Amino acid sequence: MSRQQRESLEHLLRTGPLDLGGDVTEQRPLLEALLTAHPLPADVTATPTLLGGVEAVDVSVGGDPGAAAPVLLFLHGGAYAVGSAVGVAGMAADLARRAGTGAVSVGYRLAPEDPHPAAVHDALAAYRGLLGRGVPAGWVAVGGESAGGGLALALLVAARDAGLPLPACAVLFSPWVDLTLSGTSTTTKAGVDPALDAAGLARRAADYAGGADPAGPLLSPLFADLRGLPPLLVQAGSHEVLLDDAVRLAGAAAAADVAVTLQVTPEVPHVFQGFAAVLEEGASALDEAGRFLRTHLRR
Amino acid sequence: MSRQQRESLEHLLRTGPLDLGGDVTEQRPLLEALLTAHPLPADVTATPTLLGGVEAVDVSVGGDPGAAAPVLLFLHGGAYAVGSAVGVAGMAADLARRAGTGAVSVGYRLAPEDPHPAAVHDALAAYRGLLGRGVPAGWVAVGGESAGGGLALALLVAARDAGLPLPACAVLFSPWVDLTLSGTSTTTKAGVDPALDAAGLARRAADYAGGADPAGPLLSPLFADLRGLPPLLVQAGSHEVLLDDAVRLAGAAAAADVAVTLQVTPEVPHVFQGFAAVLEEGASALDEAGRFLRTHLRR
Repeated sequence: MSRQQRESLEHLLRTGPLDLGGDVTEQRPLLEALLTAHPLPADVTATPTLLGGVEAVDVSVGGDPGAAAPVLLFLHGGAYAVGSAVGVAGMAADLARRAGTGAVSVGYRLAPEDPHPAAVHDALAAYRGLLGRGVPAGWVAVGGESAGGGLALALLVAARDAGLPLPACAVLFSPWVDLTLSGTSTTTKAGVDPALDAAGLARRAADYAGGADPAGPLLSPLFADLRGLPPLLVQAGSHEVLLDDAVRLAGAAAAADVAVTLQVTPEVPHVFQGFAAVLEEGASALDEAGRFLRTHLRR
Repeated sequence: MSRQQRESLEHLLRTGPLDLGGDVTEQRPLLEALLTAHPLPADVTATPTLLGGVEAVDVSVGGDPGAAAPVLLFLHGGAYAVGSAVGVAGMAADLARRAGTGAVSVGYRLAPEDPHPAAVHDALAAYRGLLGRGVPAGWVAVGGESAGGGLALALLVAARDAGLPLPACAVLFSPWVDLTLSGTSTTTKAGVDPALDAAGLARRAADYAGGADPAGPLLSPLFADLRGLPPLLVQAGSHEVLLDDAVRLAGAAAAADVAVTLQVTPEVPHVFQGFAAVLEEGASALDEAGRFLRTHLRR
């Protein structure tokens, strides 16, 4: 069953119109249509809000969780150029359901209109906004997928450097943490990655970096000082050009005495958790992520 | 509590008489005395046996598990020069208890008296012996710590190359998989590792390799073709010179489309799971390993 599921997904990704390196004005509506093609589950609500002055979407599963529930602060992917808070509401809800948390999905500003550090500023403002709602830092988990995974890590680094209390943990799905694209998997996995390619990512990295050094610690947090960060769960598929971002991040975190778990699922693509409804491996990975969140938010 | 536990353990390791690079005739009884200083729990039995002609110890928790239980085939550490099947019976029992399995601990031959490939031959013979007892391969999990983790990986590679059915999964605690000691942590973690040092490991690597190339795939399985291996759980502490063996193994397994989970626990030493009775992190890691085994042996 799973092999058939994997092959169907790969075919879908290879033949679909999405092109991460393409023109953002064309790609944004395409991705949005794909992400919102299926309605949210009946018990999930996604409500626009402002969090620290940043556009966001409050996501709740099974009604209002009440003020006593921990919160997942979720950062969408899309190479810092496409994607939206509402577009990943379903994925955030899938994860929040397993973790027993509420969720807020953040609509940070995108490049090329708003290059770095706009996204980091917005993520940090949203985190401050969440603390301002009265949620203790230890009840906040940060989550992110793809560029949102890199941004989640940058947020942790920025929050630490700002002297803020840190979230309890972070869950990073296929995080893009090296905008210089120096991982060997950018070439060794090029043939098997049905979704991403280095050329497209390089175009988006240049857009996002603007005039800044793409190797800077808040653009490519793989190269940041990671000491003092909370426990990290990093998941990736083995069929993605960003596999080495996940592996090297785990190594860097470990070297910096950060508690880190890396889970690599064979023969699945970038952010395969987003296809949990049609891919067993995606559902299993979300289960693991939910368990991780429950463990670290249990205080 | 945990910080105090970690500091006590580090003091014990730094001031104890064990010296992995020392004379084996002195070190063997020292390690044996340390490992057997505490009696096995009352419900654990360790019974000498022969498995495929290799000396081994049947370990059972809570009485005879019966023929229907899966089995953990466990390979002790000691840099291929010291350690014994009975010496790790307690650790194997700790893990088997959490996994709901039986266990067999293998007394493979040691260097310098019996250099490579004696240990791999013995491990493979023991695995064949387990299959010969009628245990289905899918009900076998391989476990190993330190050199035994490397040997467990070599066993999987050798079993695959021999065309044998493969175990369901493997659990590797602080595996030593690179006898050339090329990981950066051999130097970057030298100051914080209270148990091991590269010079001692190099002496043991030379003893074990005999005339063989220490980079060979069954001596340093980090460099083996890992394709087709079953799911791996790799655990390590961040205070060990072999940290990079664990991280690089996870990367190599992921690149080869092997399902792999890496868990790094901060500020704990080599094979900290062996100190579970006095270290919270050790018990937690064993819990995770037990859960991993239950997941993959559940067929």
